[in-house]
Amino acid sequence: MRATVIHAPHDIRVQEVPDPAIQQPTDVVLRVLRACICGSDLWAYRGESARQPGQRIGHEFLGIVEETGSGVNGFAVGDLVVAPFVWSDGTCAYCAEGLTTSCPQGGFWGSVGSDGGQGEAVRVPFADGTLVKLPAAAASDDRLLAALLALSDVLGTGHHAAVGAGVKPGSTVAVVGDGAVGLCGVMAAKRLGAERIIALGRHQARTDIARTFGATDVVAERGEAAVAAVRELLGGEGAHAVIEAVGTEQSMRTAVEITRDGGSIGYVGVPHGSGTGLDLGVMFDRNIALRGGVAPVRSYIPELLPDVLSGTIDPSPVFDLTIGLDEVPVGYKAMDGRTALKVLIKP
Amino acid sequence: MRATVIHAPHDIRVQEVPDPAIQQPTDVVLRVLRACICGSDLWAYRGESARQPGQRIGHEFLGIVEETGSGVNGFAVGDLVVAPFVWSDGTCAYCAEGLTTSCPQGGFWGSVGSDGGQGEAVRVPFADGTLVKLPAAAASDDRLLAALLALSDVLGTGHHAAVGAGVKPGSTVAVVGDGAVGLCGVMAAKRLGAERIIALGRHQARTDIARTFGATDVVAERGEAAVAAVRELLGGEGAHAVIEAVGTEQSMRTAVEITRDGGSIGYVGVPHGSGTGLDLGVMFDRNIALRGGVAPVRSYIPELLPDVLSGTIDPSPVFDLTIGLDEVPVGYKAMDGRTALKVLIKP
Repeated sequence: MRATVIHAPHDIRVQEVPDPAIQQPTDVVLRVLRACICGSDLWAYRGESARQPGQRIGHEFLGIVEETGSGVNGFAVGDLVVAPFVWSDGTCAYCAEGLTTSCPQGGFWGSVGSDGGQGEAVRVPFADGTLVKLPAAAASDDRLLAALLALSDVLGTGHHAAVGAGVKPGSTVAVVGDGAVGLCGVMAAKRLGAERIIALGRHQARTDIARTFGATDVVAERGEAAVAAVRELLGGEGAHAVIEAVGTEQSMRTAVEITRDGGSIGYVGVPHGSGTGLDLGVMFDRNIALRGGVAPVRSYIPELLPDVLSGTIDPSPVFDLTIGLDEVPVGYKAMDGRTALKVLIKP
Repeated sequence: MRATVIHAPHDIRVQEVPDPAIQQPTDVVLRVLRACICGSDLWAYRGESARQPGQRIGHEFLGIVEETGSGVNGFAVGDLVVAPFVWSDGTCAYCAEGLTTSCPQGGFWGSVGSDGGQGEAVRVPFADGTLVKLPAAAASDDRLLAALLALSDVLGTGHHAAVGAGVKPGSTVAVVGDGAVGLCGVMAAKRLGAERIIALGRHQARTDIARTFGATDVVAERGEAAVAAVRELLGGEGAHAVIEAVGTEQSMRTAVEITRDGGSIGYVGVPHGSGTGLDLGVMFDRNIALRGGVAPVRSYIPELLPDVLSGTIDPSPVFDLTIGLDEVPVGYKAMDGRTALKVLIKP
């Protein structure tokens, strides 16, 4: 089959690789119908996250079950399914608690020896614990497929941030980061009943999406000016709930400064750089909590899926460029250069 | 009157100061019946927290109302009352939310221009918002007075840590710090239903108290050896809830390392030093939350007081040395040299 392989920073190629095959009774082989490129893939693309030459890449995909291992009970050939961005066994204590990302048997698509999502097919370990079935009719609905693909990462990650930030009915919310995760954080906050949602971002195409997702205000300033602007909007106070969807020292510093005393930062931006951006003295004096991390999106799919299917929420506008598999290198360039927000792949 | 004054690091004196008097209609003047020395007072004593020469000190006290301003409604002369370690107006949005430490009109005993608790009397601003009435009969019960005095700080602070750490029935808990706050954290965790409570500490007199307060296990090791010991006790995992009651970079690092994936650190140790001890990459991968800060103990007193009065919980053993007011400098030396755990003052 053909799949995306990362050879070195900025050297991403689509090439022939071995066809996936059932290795364990709990495996499924899945034909990819839709995949996409994640902001976090760019860290590998830029060489800021280490990869071994020849690793696959891509961790967001949905598709059709093509073959099932003898121990798979929940899926049959032909099923339309979505995969979260890590696989998990579905039976351990962490999976039972909903923290599927801490499953001892879990793993990340594209890690050494595993398939990545940006290819024609994927061997899925622990399919019963990992995959979630979708209605077959969705396969012929382009818009809905894109919305459902967001369940593999960005929608669940935005939801995790909103949950970590403690969003509840009536909350004031501020969202740091105007990427697909930040925008999905806006959507998740709105879904959880936030009264006021301030999106921080300078790119109007993105903040326009933020508004359609539920943002009531947009702050285009950065750094100290952004802090002042948010506080002015909130009568001098910070926001009850702050979503940090970037992962840099500066973004975390901003997040701390715009959180109301007693509020929480829900952080889902993968931490980068040596500093945390956390001023613990300030957080202590003001009782600011920090909650979040890698999102156990598998656990959130059953809650979010009905709202996506009913159209109550529609994250599909985060995809602003659609390409074929052979164009994946072009897709990375477009996201790296910020000419695309999030790239959808039709293999 | 006589009160404790800090002139310079290690220069604490008990001396004549002006008698407190009603300045605002909402003031009360309180005759101190019991006060004590806090571990955080030692930061000032050691010169690690700045103080202006001549500032008062001491923020934990209870006593008898001696005079009330014309606007005070909740208290009468002769009432026995306890003060939390900050005053607060009781009427602002933060006070309504229970975050009394963020009250814009609030303040800390001993700050410039205010009385400290380690003296014969105190002018209490916003008395209706600040003070809590105690049963008059307690005034003649030495043991009970000591237990009630813990409501002014250490018991409520330990409770705040336990709440921040997310302790609930069945939780596994680890407590970093064997000072009075850490010990009260053990007590609070037990009260909230923790199933297993591991106290980290090397001083047997203190860990013995921890056991009477509810600790099921004691770990005397430090650093990496402590981490290994805690994980061995918990079958290789960390604790659901970790109480950080020290405030150093090393203690926070230990706290992160002994927290179970998906667990929380409730931190109440006043942060000291330049580093936070927080490895955000580890916290991200393992979804470890950080919650806590300066404890709004005023809000916790109504919940904790009945249990102290009934004897369900008795924090009085944290006081292992009782002195008169003139001996306060000796009390600081004893706590600084760790020959006393916590010093009770009878003015």
